[in-house]
Amino acid sequence: MIPGFFMISKIKIHFIRSLHQKKGREENGQFLAEGSKIVMDLMDSRFPLREIYALPEWLNSHGNLLQNRQALIAEVNENEMGKITALSSPSPVLAVFDLTSSGKVPSFPINDIVLALDGIRDPGNMGTIIRIADWFGIRQVICSEDTVELFNPKVVQATMGSIARVNVAYTSLFGWLSALTPGIPVYGTFLEGNDIYQEELASSGVIIMGNESRGISPEMDSLVNHRIFIPSFSTGNHAESLNASIATAIVCSEFRRRKKI
Amino acid sequence: MIPGFFMISKIKIHFIRSLHQKKGREENGQFLAEGSKIVMDLMDSRFPLREIYALPEWLNSHGNLLQNRQALIAEVNENEMGKITALSSPSPVLAVFDLTSSGKVPSFPINDIVLALDGIRDPGNMGTIIRIADWFGIRQVICSEDTVELFNPKVVQATMGSIARVNVAYTSLFGWLSALTPGIPVYGTFLEGNDIYQEELASSGVIIMGNESRGISPEMDSLVNHRIFIPSFSTGNHAESLNASIATAIVCSEFRRRKKI
Repeated sequence: MIPGFFMISKIKIHFIRSLHQKKGREENGQFLAEGSKIVMDLMDSRFPLREIYALPEWLNSHGNLLQNRQALIAEVNENEMGKITALSSPSPVLAVFDLTSSGKVPSFPINDIVLALDGIRDPGNMGTIIRIADWFGIRQVICSEDTVELFNPKVVQATMGSIARVNVAYTSLFGWLSALTPGIPVYGTFLEGNDIYQEELASSGVIIMGNESRGISPEMDSLVNHRIFIPSFSTGNHAESLNASIATAIVCSEFRRRKKI
Repeated sequence: MIPGFFMISKIKIHFIRSLHQKKGREENGQFLAEGSKIVMDLMDSRFPLREIYALPEWLNSHGNLLQNRQALIAEVNENEMGKITALSSPSPVLAVFDLTSSGKVPSFPINDIVLALDGIRDPGNMGTIIRIADWFGIRQVICSEDTVELFNPKVVQATMGSIARVNVAYTSLFGWLSALTPGIPVYGTFLEGNDIYQEELASSGVIIMGNESRGISPEMDSLVNHRIFIPSFSTGNHAESLNASIATAIVCSEFRRRKKI
């Protein structure tokens, strides 16, 4: 036990476990993140750090990062970490952050690519999409209200830290899209449409990615003015579709490639 | 109970559960698949169907597919399906296939793109990569021996049926690559190298995708003759890397796009 660090109490264990659930996050206005990289990325973000629970080795090697932080820092052993983790293989550090500073809805006019998620439900897809946006320098992600919650621990983990850098907002996607200046391109990805590799792609506009099973909802579909698809180069029988995060990656790659040349 | 169908026995439940594990699959030479689409795709593949366990509704609506099949067909109820499934949410059908016809190592000369997996460990990534290969008409996937097993139920599910159409072989990847005709392009994806969007990409050759954490192993690296990377279009801090299946998708998309034009 390193002097000066708190020990974890039963009530804290109960509190942290409540953050595994949406209800607990909403009631407490906080969320958790695990793993050294993700926690450190979040320590440099708009989300205020409140509490850190870490194994002694992690505290020893990261003590300098914790100086002048107004956060509760507790040393835990592996048994205690096992009680608070949301992971199947616990990491050496778990941190609690405030989620008060929610994402800002992108303001008009739009002068870059905005990624719009229309009902993405799988936490792994959601986190991976935020990581893709971060990689390709897409700073704004706007989500329909039925998109999986950003602070779900599985989403946070799948972002691999990109949650610290990408602005993710939830709103009535239909209302937001309806208010766009006419003439702004709104791209929708479908299983048919114009070949993305042949289509002219703007350097600013909205790209809508649809739900894993049902695709883009009819409501949003009515606001799409550029229907694109990713062609399969397979002859004969082939996969019926691509996973939602895979399609997002290919689309973002193609938009950014065009911007460069 | 539909007349003519078997009931499931305790020993069969035990047998099917053994197929959840690698040891059981190796000992029995069989693997399982679940879900209507995946099972039906596999029924049209090189893997012989041996047993089907399904809810009555599925049997009623798919009876025509089961005619003239030399397979054991058993009706199960939801409780029994819950005992044999490898999924957290059971599907209406689970089937057992022989895995005897293992994938063929691609023969020389190579006249298309071959995807080489160097130690992919995550079942979700592996299945997703096979689905991507299927979408882009890449018929040959060759894996190092430390790549996750194709018949792992999580891999099978993540292929969404593409396992039925893509030839996946396991071998000494170093030995196979060493035996390639000199002059065949061997592409490796790294975090640095030549910008994939600018690089000349051949329409036949090998693309190596590395392990999720350590990337391409030093052994395979020595055989790469075209080092490529996916540029980030982000300024400032950004994601350090892309997920292995995401990188595979972007690379395959770019190779196939070039082939077309």
